[in-house]
Amino acid sequence: MSSSSAAPGRGDGAEKPPMRDALVAAAFRLFLERGYEQTTVDDVVALAGVGRRSFFRCFPSEDDAVFPDHERCLADMTAFLAAGADDEPVRRVCAAARPVLRMHAENPAFSVRRYRLTESVPGLRAYESSVVRRYERAPAGYLRARFAGPRDGALRADVIAAAVVAAHHNALRSWLRSDGKGDAEAAVDHALGQVRAAFGAGPVAAAGKGPEDVVVVVSRRGAPLWRVVQELETALGRG
Amino acid sequence: MSSSSAAPGRGDGAEKPPMRDALVAAAFRLFLERGYEQTTVDDVVALAGVGRRSFFRCFPSEDDAVFPDHERCLADMTAFLAAGADDEPVRRVCAAARPVLRMHAENPAFSVRRYRLTESVPGLRAYESSVVRRYERAPAGYLRARFAGPRDGALRADVIAAAVVAAHHNALRSWLRSDGKGDAEAAVDHALGQVRAAFGAGPVAAAGKGPEDVVVVVSRRGAPLWRVVQELETALGRG
Repeated sequence: MSSSSAAPGRGDGAEKPPMRDALVAAAFRLFLERGYEQTTVDDVVALAGVGRRSFFRCFPSEDDAVFPDHERCLADMTAFLAAGADDEPVRRVCAAARPVLRMHAENPAFSVRRYRLTESVPGLRAYESSVVRRYERAPAGYLRARFAGPRDGALRADVIAAAVVAAHHNALRSWLRSDGKGDAEAAVDHALGQVRAAFGAGPVAAAGKGPEDVVVVVSRRGAPLWRVVQELETALGRG
Repeated sequence: MSSSSAAPGRGDGAEKPPMRDALVAAAFRLFLERGYEQTTVDDVVALAGVGRRSFFRCFPSEDDAVFPDHERCLADMTAFLAAGADDEPVRRVCAAARPVLRMHAENPAFSVRRYRLTESVPGLRAYESSVVRRYERAPAGYLRARFAGPRDGALRADVIAAAVVAAHHNALRSWLRSDGKGDAEAAVDHALGQVRAAFGAGPVAAAGKGPEDVVVVVSRRGAPLWRVVQELETALGRG
């Protein structure tokens, strides 16, 4: 097993139990060598040299060994959102997506290999879809609480959460498809900027401009709204 | 087996093979009576009085018997999108979501029971998540083709597709939670209207107003963009 099979390091710098790393590496190696459908938990634990019970202490299912850090990441995201009751809500959910990116970016080689494996295995793709749904649920719950009251608050919350996750996913996938080259963080920030432009507050007004400045936009009534919004962004300096 | 266990009728009025209906009814009955985890395909075919091979001729997996019409619905959606190369793109993807709603609304009792079953069974929820992802892929693919060229076209496509599916899902779930009472179509139209307002063209300008009318919006530079967009919608008569 080459050292590049190691699981991703933790963003917080803490040491992970070596057994967990060994299980992730064994699962990956077997999925790649034999195929996902042909690999059982028994095969994984045999290769890692641990017992079945150890596996299930680390992971609820075989699939989770391929995505070993999602639970931590979801917990981080939820905690970050819970601490942001005073922030502008759309900005907060965009910021909450950053740890997910960091989880992928901190070990590009692992992330790229996992991406390729997931793309080629329908079972893992289905699992990943369900994980993506969970990533939507955290910001949706936060936004529902923040938008509680106004008509369509829950609708707005769900739509924005889906848009944030889709933008993040788009940028992340582009980065993974490019073999983890380039600045993933800048790509994700750019993508999330589009969501903020459509739904939320952009960055604070440009330096030297008071908040009471006014902006006048003149538009044809027949123009598509998104074009009007683009004009508006330009006028507001939030491109 | 009560008659209310019947599978949903087809929107196009065509007759469905009775065997298919019998398998759906059997799967539902067993999932509800014994639980999802305790039900095998063998149990389902035994109750329906058909062979295993017949089951797999109708459905690729056990889960598909709970969602018997998604394949048809996805195919309808894809065909509808393919025929809309000249339409305003965001409006077209919103319209493409309608058959999905109709599939649910044409047999409310079945849809409500399925919703409750899905909510209570993690395996079915995961399956449904993967179906929702597929519903995103069809409009995303269409929008990527329509937005091909401009920078961020694919990003914009993915974000809008996710927003459309989330809005549809929000309205559909509210309707299912209310036991299928109320006007599902109006609720979905309202929800999709929010997406159109954020991203696309709203309805054509009000009668009697020429497309060359101008609208002037004055806004404080510090105002959140979504509030400015709300003003703009009101001014444009696209609330």
